Amino acid sequence: MKLYDYFRSSAAYRVRIALNLKRLAPERAFVHLRRGAQRFDDYLALNPQGLVPSLVTDSGDVLTQSLAIIEWLDETYPSAPLLPSDAAGRARVRSLALAIACDIHPLNNLRVLNYLTGTLGATGEQRNGWYRYWCDVGLEALETRLAREAATGAFCHGEQPTLADICLVPQLANARRVSLDLAPYPTLLRIEAVCMALPAFADAAPMRQPDAE
Amino acid sequence: MKLYDYFRSSAAYRVRIALNLKRLAPERAFVHLRRGAQRFDDYLALNPQGLVPSLVTDSGDVLTQSLAIIEWLDETYPSAPLLPSDAAGRARVRSLALAIACDIHPLNNLRVLNYLTGTLGATGEQRNGWYRYWCDVGLEALETRLAREAATGAFCHGEQPTLADICLVPQLANARRVSLDLAPYPTLLRIEAVCMALPAFADAAPMRQPDAE
Repeated sequence: MKLYDYFRSSAAYRVRIALNLKRLAPERAFVHLRRGAQRFDDYLALNPQGLVPSLVTDSGDVLTQSLAIIEWLDETYPSAPLLPSDAAGRARVRSLALAIACDIHPLNNLRVLNYLTGTLGATGEQRNGWYRYWCDVGLEALETRLAREAATGAFCHGEQPTLADICLVPQLANARRVSLDLAPYPTLLRIEAVCMALPAFADAAPMRQPDAE
Repeated sequence: MKLYDYFRSSAAYRVRIALNLKRLAPERAFVHLRRGAQRFDDYLALNPQGLVPSLVTDSGDVLTQSLAIIEWLDETYPSAPLLPSDAAGRARVRSLALAIACDIHPLNNLRVLNYLTGTLGATGEQRNGWYRYWCDVGLEALETRLAREAATGAFCHGEQPTLADICLVPQLANARRVSLDLAPYPTLLRIEAVCMALPAFADAAPMRQPDAE
């Protein structure tokens, strides 16, 4: 297996956590997003979306999209399951994960921020306002759900880390990079602390990666 | 079962297709997004994200996020499967679906367009340029993949409709609403035509819903 990674990518960060939870350590290549390496021909040949992460399996399949990669890892390496065993629980975990992966993260992606300041001529302040706004809208809804739903445990769902925690931790790291005030999200912070006490989460953090700057 | 729906929502459109493929016809409620009904207290109590769709199951669980709902439907009603039977195939279908659900659709959501014109003061032309740009970037990568990958069949993956087709068809409907030139995407158009020949897809179209305007 080979992971195409970038320390700062929160989608790659999700896959790093999942790999650690599964105790898998694939070969790694680093795609330098800020230098535009995701638009180089050799990477586009692998992943036409020009996004990280990609995972090349031992059979040579190229897997893309972090959530699809993590579901594949969970199906292929079932120990330390990343989804609950019941359908309703799986639906809950997936919906928490997608509320981050679809409704927060894509709006705050590097390419989107570049479009705002480049093509639309937004100021740095407007760009940061956009970033914080979509973080807040998304985290507020997550806090409401996690604070009131009985299925929330030490982690987003019960007493083991799942796909939902795997999405939550990188999103909170992103929010901190734009100095978002996280005080309104005590449940998210409590869960994050429980996650970060696990080496699988801590070791996947951006600044602990070999390509970190 | 009860589906909270809105004719124009392409996330709801996905769930309508899945329900039709499964031959399920839940009770329906309509959440009028343009009138802001998704921000009314009774709907927020159900779905704190204030997005459609939501699906309330017969056990009273509230499911949110279209892809999580569709995975639940597929696990709970296995006939007419919406995912392939092999892990690599499932990873491929999920990644095609997520390339739309994460990387195109959230950028062109009504709330995002409203932020562009409202908070950022973008012109109508800039808003439409934004919409077309993210559609094109996403559809271009999908066309590349679907045209070259051997697993593509009459549908996105093989000879049966899957979660990938369920995401593709509503996305192309959205692209048409902003008069995007779809000629560069012959593979997508070919697959769309195959899908639309099936009543499950055709009957789920926005203009065929009871709340259509």
